[in-house]
Amino acid sequence: MVGQPQGPGGGIEALIQLLAKMPGLGPRSARRAALHLLKRRESLMEPLARALTDAANSVKTCSICHNIDTVDPCRVCTDPKRDHSQICVVEEIGDLWAMDRVLGYRGLYHVLGGTLSALDGVGPEDLDVGALVERARHPDVKEIILATNATVDGQTTAHYIADRLSDADVSVSGLAHGVPVGGELDYLDEGTLAAALKARKPV
Amino acid sequence: MVGQPQGPGGGIEALIQLLAKMPGLGPRSARRAALHLLKRRESLMEPLARALTDAANSVKTCSICHNIDTVDPCRVCTDPKRDHSQICVVEEIGDLWAMDRVLGYRGLYHVLGGTLSALDGVGPEDLDVGALVERARHPDVKEIILATNATVDGQTTAHYIADRLSDADVSVSGLAHGVPVGGELDYLDEGTLAAALKARKPV
Repeated sequence: MVGQPQGPGGGIEALIQLLAKMPGLGPRSARRAALHLLKRRESLMEPLARALTDAANSVKTCSICHNIDTVDPCRVCTDPKRDHSQICVVEEIGDLWAMDRVLGYRGLYHVLGGTLSALDGVGPEDLDVGALVERARHPDVKEIILATNATVDGQTTAHYIADRLSDADVSVSGLAHGVPVGGELDYLDEGTLAAALKARKPV
Repeated sequence: MVGQPQGPGGGIEALIQLLAKMPGLGPRSARRAALHLLKRRESLMEPLARALTDAANSVKTCSICHNIDTVDPCRVCTDPKRDHSQICVVEEIGDLWAMDRVLGYRGLYHVLGGTLSALDGVGPEDLDVGALVERARHPDVKEIILATNATVDGQTTAHYIADRLSDADVSVSGLAHGVPVGGELDYLDEGTLAAALKARKPV
């Protein structure tokens, strides 16, 4: 004679399970997020539903650089004010946003969509490095900047790409290693410190 | 002759700004979440949009206990297998879920939607304590369990409600204070330890 355990009713459980699949949200915070949304139906929940539908319908992957945008080619690739002599190679679209937003880099991009990884079975053909080599052959392109992460896989990928570009008529550069601005030496790993010492500059 | 800073294009920026309003997501993690969604358009983004729309359209607030459900009165209030002699008073709907899911409590509920708070200008009329007093007068109701948080505001609210219920024919109880199960004494605050000592029991 006891009732059923009463979780959230109706479609709320389905909503919570979908929210829990987002990065940064676990089962518990997804529950909190669902409640937060349900309390703000008109100001947040319905606009979010529309924004998701709109973005899902309108967003395309750029066939040149693999950025996402509402147009293909994307507005980075077609912007005449950008410097078309530079292509910055990044792992993910989020890295492209970071470069553009934070650094004010105004060249072109190439999004690999990952790194080479023996462990995960990701080979050169999965990253479509050939398309990048093709772009590097365009007479306008003078420099390829390799901005993959400073991880083992990221650096392996950078080396591999540099190798593939060796017979193209472009200069290939990579981001500098060193002490992060605002960073304390005490907390740095030895590899970074060694790289910073090796690349020391006259003050 | 430099291009415009290229953030995410199209409706993506609007999506990120809405995602950043969810609890547990800041501007940076909202950006990550948006990318995560855009990469999983069919498996996550579109189902999430539908789940949000469905829930926004179907979820109602129960006019008896202020729980949310797809029906009004909610299925807790109308469940004949539940113990209708007990009403557990909680601050938020999330507390109701926790009581039901975790504890297996099978009585009825009353969701206040907050606590009395002089600082935030929340008075008894904002919490509609009168509706609870009215419910407590029903002849079936024998016990009101005050399960507001063990915070100053939560306890003030519990005391106020106990006061208002003093002339109703119900017993009024509160959750016990004490050492959390699995908790180490070393890490407990003095208030909890004092309460646990005072409420000590024969072993």
